[in-house]
Formats: sequence, structure tokens, C-alpha cells
Amino acid sequence: MKVVFSPEHARHEPQLFLVRGQPKPSAEQPERAERLLAAVQARGDEILAPAGLGPGPLAAVHTPDYLRFLEEAWDAWQALGDSGGEIIPNVHPAHHQASYPRAIVGRAGWHMADTACPIGPGTFAAACAAADAAATGAELLLDGETQAYALCRPPGHHAYADMAGGFCFLNNAAIAAQRLRRAHERVAILDVDVHHGNGTQGIFYQRPDVLTVSLHADPQDFYPFFWGHGHERGAGPGLGYNLNLPLPIGTADDGWLAALERHALPAIRAFAPGALVVALGLDAFEGDPLRGLAITTPGFARIAAAIARLGLPTLLVQEGGYLAPELGGNLASFLGGFEEAR
Amino acid sequence: MKVVFSPEHARHEPQLFLVRGQPKPSAEQPERAERLLAAVQARGDEILAPAGLGPGPLAAVHTPDYLRFLEEAWDAWQALGDSGGEIIPNVHPAHHQASYPRAIVGRAGWHMADTACPIGPGTFAAACAAADAAATGAELLLDGETQAYALCRPPGHHAYADMAGGFCFLNNAAIAAQRLRRAHERVAILDVDVHHGNGTQGIFYQRPDVLTVSLHADPQDFYPFFWGHGHERGAGPGLGYNLNLPLPIGTADDGWLAALERHALPAIRAFAPGALVVALGLDAFEGDPLRGLAITTPGFARIAAAIARLGLPTLLVQEGGYLAPELGGNLASFLGGFEEAR
Repeated sequence: MKVVFSPEHARHEPQLFLVRGQPKPSAEQPERAERLLAAVQARGDEILAPAGLGPGPLAAVHTPDYLRFLEEAWDAWQALGDSGGEIIPNVHPAHHQASYPRAIVGRAGWHMADTACPIGPGTFAAACAAADAAATGAELLLDGETQAYALCRPPGHHAYADMAGGFCFLNNAAIAAQRLRRAHERVAILDVDVHHGNGTQGIFYQRPDVLTVSLHADPQDFYPFFWGHGHERGAGPGLGYNLNLPLPIGTADDGWLAALERHALPAIRAFAPGALVVALGLDAFEGDPLRGLAITTPGFARIAAAIARLGLPTLLVQEGGYLAPELGGNLASFLGGFEEAR
Repeated sequence: MKVVFSPEHARHEPQLFLVRGQPKPSAEQPERAERLLAAVQARGDEILAPAGLGPGPLAAVHTPDYLRFLEEAWDAWQALGDSGGEIIPNVHPAHHQASYPRAIVGRAGWHMADTACPIGPGTFAAACAAADAAATGAELLLDGETQAYALCRPPGHHAYADMAGGFCFLNNAAIAAQRLRRAHERVAILDVDVHHGNGTQGIFYQRPDVLTVSLHADPQDFYPFFWGHGHERGAGPGLGYNLNLPLPIGTADDGWLAALERHALPAIRAFAPGALVVALGLDAFEGDPLRGLAITTPGFARIAAAIARLGLPTLLVQEGGYLAPELGGNLASFLGGFEEAR
């Protein structure tokens, strides 16, 4: 399988992760990408650099004010004086009617949902490289590949059109899906990360041309809390084009696969998309530090095989999956299972 | 002047204040209230305890889910395990359509706008005592006093019906104004704190029976950033019943008084309220650590005199004002100026 990867990811080195009122080290470390890269290298996959598609693919998904914010934010934050080395938002408009602010502290609160997406000096460059990898993966499919893997870091599925959150800045999967719309009337996104793909849902919530399906730990008790509930089905012209399958905390292979086979895959088949983007988090793993679901290493191969049997041109886009010793093995299991079922 | 005060305020001892990406000690310290109390004691004012009006006055302004959150939050946060001693929100629904969450981490992000309102074990008790002081002050007016001062801590004007923010939990001024509605068809709130009274604005934004007027440092460059702009005039039946007077950073006595005389007081006179609540922040002081505006100590007396000349039954409710050596003197200047002009 062709793999798209950029070493630029390492320019994003998040430090703070404020959780339960306490600062902790961020789980979204550069080491993650190195381990995933080693796994595809060990498989002998062909590794390609992103094609350098420029700002177009980003602008097709993200708002101009958000992209300007990401580009300018770190310098503006430092210019405040007495600033920390990372942008961490400290004020938010929340759910109340609000005016878009001019000051960088206000813009940070507007465009950053939580304290799990600190912006350092290299964050925007790394996020652009990841988005470029995803868009390049989409190009591979447009050029006739039936499958490809974009090894993106930072991940993307919690990023809205105008908002970072949960380790994510640019929505790589959404950018890839939008790119695939160039050739396909309908594109589906299937999110298998342990967390609901709330940014992806938000981006396409009112659109009927991109079906968004997500299996994830029930947000009643798990990040992102505010989104991913079963009653969220899309809105306006997009009503019925969003499917959330929240699973009880601790759900293992069989329960997960049952939801996939009974609900997710039939919805995708009925939508008859021209291509599929898989938001490939590996953090549903039973040994993942985030401990939401309990997929085994062989379970990832079974999941991948079930998805592969849809028979769709498929781009796999890396999302979460943290520093368990099995991280690389879980990726290899997924990729192997996928190829075997094709 | 009768003063309502409760020593319960001291149960709220906020620690963290995350600002520009760095943890700092909170400026909203118990010592503030002790200095303000010393100032009224030195004036010989009569000091009364809150009347113990119970949950009614709070429930008249705040939502049931928010009041339940404030009451339960600290215990639920501790029950998470590995929790810090204060609740600091780390995820927010921001401005995107969201579902109300069950988990305490999600509820904290829903009900807390920023990192400047940490909730400790005694926070709810202290906030209730402050709200009780404000409601008791309103009762004094209903009983025939023409003026009274509620020495509230924590402050209240950044608190929405369902959201804490900026050192505030329960909106003391709004609670007092709502209480005054028992006897008066129309009540006005004039907010002279250096920060826009966004919570107060939010609570009454769609109502024509409570006029909200705020003079403050321009939120383009100052907290609360998202609110306090001149174009925010109310909505629905409340359109035209909210007046924001943002002032350039550094505005001093004459500029401030000009905005008061030309815009704020005429609006209040035209509204012909039966009573007035003054959200009395003293942080517009030139020496306040927050450095937004530049009112002098004698300037507070001039401001107070101009307000007193409205001739309305008036409740002064303490808002901000931080640990400058002149804090108590500024309160004495305001109270003296107010009484002298009556």
C-alpha cells in the first residue's frame, strides 16, 4: 500500500495537557508517528512525500479567519509579552451569542475548543504537512489507486471548519474527502477512532454529499462529551447524512464489529459513495492509554477486512492511537487485514 | 449607608489563573473583601448580615442545571480520581451546536467559560452568601431605604444564567435587579466595572423590563473579548434595552464621565426605572493591577455623584477591584461622593 508521510510532523511538540484540573504531559507525541512509520517500513510499503498541494485543499474545508489565526497566532501570542511557549486558550465564547474578537487571546478562545491542542512555533507547519499528506492520498485515489494510507500527524478529526480541539488543527480526513469530491458525487467518511469525529461531523453536518459515520466510546462519559450522540443526525439538507454509533465504554471486538456490520456498513452501502475515507484512529485498542474501548490487535484486522469488503476506493487517514507498545503492530494488523480482504 | 456583608466569602480561595498560556495566582483573593470591609467600618457604616433568603432569588435568575452543577461539581470532580483541588474546565462546546453532557468534565466545560473561575470546595457556599447579600440589599430598598451597599465576593457580573466566568459564579447584580422587579415595573443596571458586564447583559438580553448599561474598556482588546461591543443592543423584545459604552484602553476621569453624562445617564432617565442597581467594580482605577482604564480616587467620587443625582433608589453591588493599596480608599471615595450628592 502506498503511504504518504512528512517528517514535518515533528515540528509540533505539544507539552501541556490540562486534565481534571491538573497539567499533564500531552499524549500526542512525535514518537507516535515514528512508531507508525517504522511499522509501514517493516511491511515494505512505498513511502511518498506529500505533493505540496498548497493552501487550496485547506481552504476548501476551513474558514479564512481560522486559517489566518493558525498562521499568525504563535507570533501574536509571543508579542503579548510574558507569554508561555504554547498558546493555551483561557476564555471561550461558549454557547452564548458572541462577537468575533480582534485580540489574539479572544481569537484563541474562539478557535480552540479545549486545552488539548496547544499551539507551538511549529504547529501550523506540521498541521499543513499532515493536511497535505491527506490531500495527496486523495490524489493517489483520483489517479487510480484503489487504496492508500496517509500517515498524518497531528491528527484531524476533532478540528471543525473554524476550530481546533483534542490534538487536532486541520481536519485531514475532511480535506481528503473534499478533494475526492472532485471526481465523485458522493464520498463517505467512516471514523473508527475511539473518540467521536466531531469536527468532521460539524464540517459536513448540513451537507448531503458527504456521509459521515462514526463508531466511538459513548460521549456521555468520554471526550468530546458535547457531540457524538445518537440523536445527532445532520441538519437542513444534511439531515440523515450523519450517523453516530456510540458504544459503551469497554466494548470489545465483537460488540464493535456488530455495530459496524449492522449499522455503519449498510448505511455506507445505501449511500453508494464513489470513494471512502477511513478516519483511522488506533486508540480503540484495549491497551491504549486513553482506555475507552477494548479492540484487540487481531480485532483491527477483522475491522479492516469488513471495511475492505465494501469494495470502494479507500483512503486510510491516521487519527489517534497513543504510545502503547502495540501501536505499530495494530497499524500493521489493520493494513494487513485490509489488503487480505481486497 | 447600610452595608450587607458575609464572612462566608472567605471560603472561596481561587488558586489558578491561566493567562497567556501560563499559570498565575488568581487576582480575586479573599483579602479584597477584607480591605473593602475595613473601608466601610472606618466610615462607621452599619454592617448587616445577609437575610438568608434561600434559593429563590438564585433560581429567579439562574437555570436549574447550572445551580445543580455548582452544588454538585466539586464532589463529582474529586470522585473522578487523580483530580486537582479546583475545577478548571478543559473542554468547551464553543459556538458549535452541542448536546448537554452528563459527565462532570463536560458539564464543567459547558457551565464555565474560562480558566478564571476555578471551583474549590467552598466556592458554592461563598457564591450563595454573596448572592444572598445582594438580594438582601434589594430587600432593604423594597423596605424603604434609598440606598444600600452589598459587599459581594465573589463578584457576579460575568456570570450568565447558566455559566460562570471571570471570577464570577452567581450574578449578584442580576439577582438584586430581579428581586427589585417585585416592586418596580422597570429596573436599570449600570455597570461601572472596568470589564463589560457580559453575564448581566446575557441574562436580560431579550427582556425590556431591565435596562442594562455598561461602561468598560473596549473588549476588542480586553476581557471579555466576545461581548461588550457597541453593536450589541439587545434582541427580540429586549432590542434597544442594552447599551454598551466601550472606552479606549487608558480612558481617564473626564472621558469616562463624558460617556456617562452623554449616553448612560440619559438612557437611564428615558427608561424611567423604579430602582437602580450599580455593578460597582473599582478596577477602572488607574492603579488597578488589571490596567484597563485610568480613573483616579477622586474620579470615583465624581462618578458616584453623577449617578446619585439620578435620584433613584440605588443598590450598589460590589464587582471587581483588585489588590491596589488604594482599593479601600476608592470605595470610600465612591460612597462618600454618592452620599454627598443625594
